[in-house]
Amino acid sequence: MLTLTPLPNIPLIEKNDDLAEIILKNSPKIQDGDIFVLAQKIISKAEGRLVNLADVKPSSRALQLATATEKDARLVELILQESAEIVRTRPGLIVVEHKLGFICANAGIDRSNINPYPHPNLPPKGEGINSPPRRGGDVRRTEGGHEYVLLLPKNPDKSAKKLRDALQKRTGKKLGILIIDSHGRAWREGIVGITIGLAGVPGVVDKRGDTDLFGQELKVTQIGVADELAAAASLMMGQTNEGKPIVHVRGFPYPLRESKLEELLRSKEKDLFR
Amino acid sequence: MLTLTPLPNIPLIEKNDDLAEIILKNSPKIQDGDIFVLAQKIISKAEGRLVNLADVKPSSRALQLATATEKDARLVELILQESAEIVRTRPGLIVVEHKLGFICANAGIDRSNINPYPHPNLPPKGEGINSPPRRGGDVRRTEGGHEYVLLLPKNPDKSAKKLRDALQKRTGKKLGILIIDSHGRAWREGIVGITIGLAGVPGVVDKRGDTDLFGQELKVTQIGVADELAAAASLMMGQTNEGKPIVHVRGFPYPLRESKLEELLRSKEKDLFR
Repeated sequence: MLTLTPLPNIPLIEKNDDLAEIILKNSPKIQDGDIFVLAQKIISKAEGRLVNLADVKPSSRALQLATATEKDARLVELILQESAEIVRTRPGLIVVEHKLGFICANAGIDRSNINPYPHPNLPPKGEGINSPPRRGGDVRRTEGGHEYVLLLPKNPDKSAKKLRDALQKRTGKKLGILIIDSHGRAWREGIVGITIGLAGVPGVVDKRGDTDLFGQELKVTQIGVADELAAAASLMMGQTNEGKPIVHVRGFPYPLRESKLEELLRSKEKDLFR
Repeated sequence: MLTLTPLPNIPLIEKNDDLAEIILKNSPKIQDGDIFVLAQKIISKAEGRLVNLADVKPSSRALQLATATEKDARLVELILQESAEIVRTRPGLIVVEHKLGFICANAGIDRSNINPYPHPNLPPKGEGINSPPRRGGDVRRTEGGHEYVLLLPKNPDKSAKKLRDALQKRTGKKLGILIIDSHGRAWREGIVGITIGLAGVPGVVDKRGDTDLFGQELKVTQIGVADELAAAASLMMGQTNEGKPIVHVRGFPYPLRESKLEELLRSKEKDLFR
C-alpha cells in the first residue's frame, strides 16, 4: 500500500528556515524508505529566491518579447535570465527550456502564494534583485508589495540532497526527497506535479530486459517513477490556499538509490517536439 | 491521507469477464468516495480487443510507413486504423492523435502481457481481425501464437461508466472509476500513467477565481487531478510481470462528480506542439 500524508502545521517559510527541523517536528514517526515530497516554492523561499520586480531592468530583448506576449517586461527579463532557450510563445505564455534542463512555462517563475507584505521596511537600495525581504513584522506596506516573484531553486538536486542528508543524519533512517513543481503538458489540459530535483528516489526505473507475464521480453519500458510520485503528492498539496507543501510518502514500491534530475530529461537530440 | 492499494488475486482477464464481480471479490470493504483505477489492458481484454496480426492486410500506406519506421506493416495498418492523424514518426516510433483524441505512441497498441498461446485451436478462418482467441486450454501452440496485439477500448469513458454504475448498484456507494494507460511525454524520459477514460472522478479541477494564501486571485490554475491520480495508481501497478492491474484508492481530496476524458484533452487550436 502507498500512503501519502500532507504534513500539518507547516508555517509560512522564510529565508534560512530549517526545513529538516520543520519536517521532523510535523512528520509521522519516520521509517526506513520513507520519502518526503516538497513543493518547489518552500525550497525557493528558504533559499531566498524572491525577487523584487522593482529592481529588475528589462533588456531590449525583454521589452520586445513582453510586447509580443503581453506580459510584464520585468518578469520577461527574469524569464530570459532563467532560460537556456525560448521554445514557443503566444500571448500570455512563454515556453522555455529552463537552465535546469526541462521545458516549462514562464521559466517556472511564480507569483502566487508570495506574501506581498513580507517585511516591515522596504529593502535598502542597492541590495540587488536577489535580495529577499527580511523577516518579520506585521506592518503591511503596499509600496512595491505586490511586486515580488519567486524563482526556482538554483540547484534543486543539491537542495534535495542537502535536506535528505540532514534528515538521514538526524533520524538514522534511509530516506528520499523529491522537490516538485506543477507543469502544463504539451497536449493535455491541467497542470500536474513533476520532479525538478531529487535525492535517494530513482528518477526512472528501467525495465528493459525484464519479461512480461508470458515471458516475452519488454522492448521499451522505462517508467518515470519519480514523476508518478510527484503527481501523486501534488494531488495532496492542492494549489491555492491550502498550505500543504510537504507530503510524507510510505510504501514507495522501488528501492531507494542515488539519482538526479537528468534521468528524467529527454536530450535535445531525441526531442521530436521543440 | 491518500491510500493506494493494488487488489490481490486478479486473474488473467479474458473476453466477457465480469470486472465488477472481480473487483467486489478482491477489494477492501468499499466506502463512499472510493475510486478504482484499472489498467487499460484488462478493459480491452474483457471487451475482446485482441487482434490476430495474421488477419491484418496492410494497405500500401501502411507498407510505406512500415518501411520508414522499421515496424511490422500489419501493426502499422492497425495504428493507422486507430488514428485520426500521424503527428511524428522516426524509426521504431509512430506518434499519432488517437481516434479517442489524445496524442500517443503507436496508437496505444500493446504487445506485452498478451498470452501468446491463449487457445487450444487456431480460430476458424473468416472470423475477422477482431475475433478474439477463445478461452481455455493449456495446449501451447506456436502457430500464430505470438501474433496477437491488443487495441485500446473502443470507448473508455463508456467502459468506465458501465463499470462504475455496476459497482454503485451492487454496493449502494458513490464511487469513481479511472481507466489508465502509460504514455511517454514530449520532453521527459519515462512513461507515466495517464487517464484514457473516467466516470465519477473529476478530470480537471478549475481553481481560477480562487485566491492564494495571501488573497491574490489565481489567474490560471487548472489541475489535472485525474492524471495525477492515474500516475499515482500506475506507480503501484508496475509495468511488467507484476499482474496488479486494479488499484483501490481512498482519500481522493476532491468531491466525485460526472466527467469525461474530453476535459483533459487540449484542443488542436490551443496545441503549440504538433
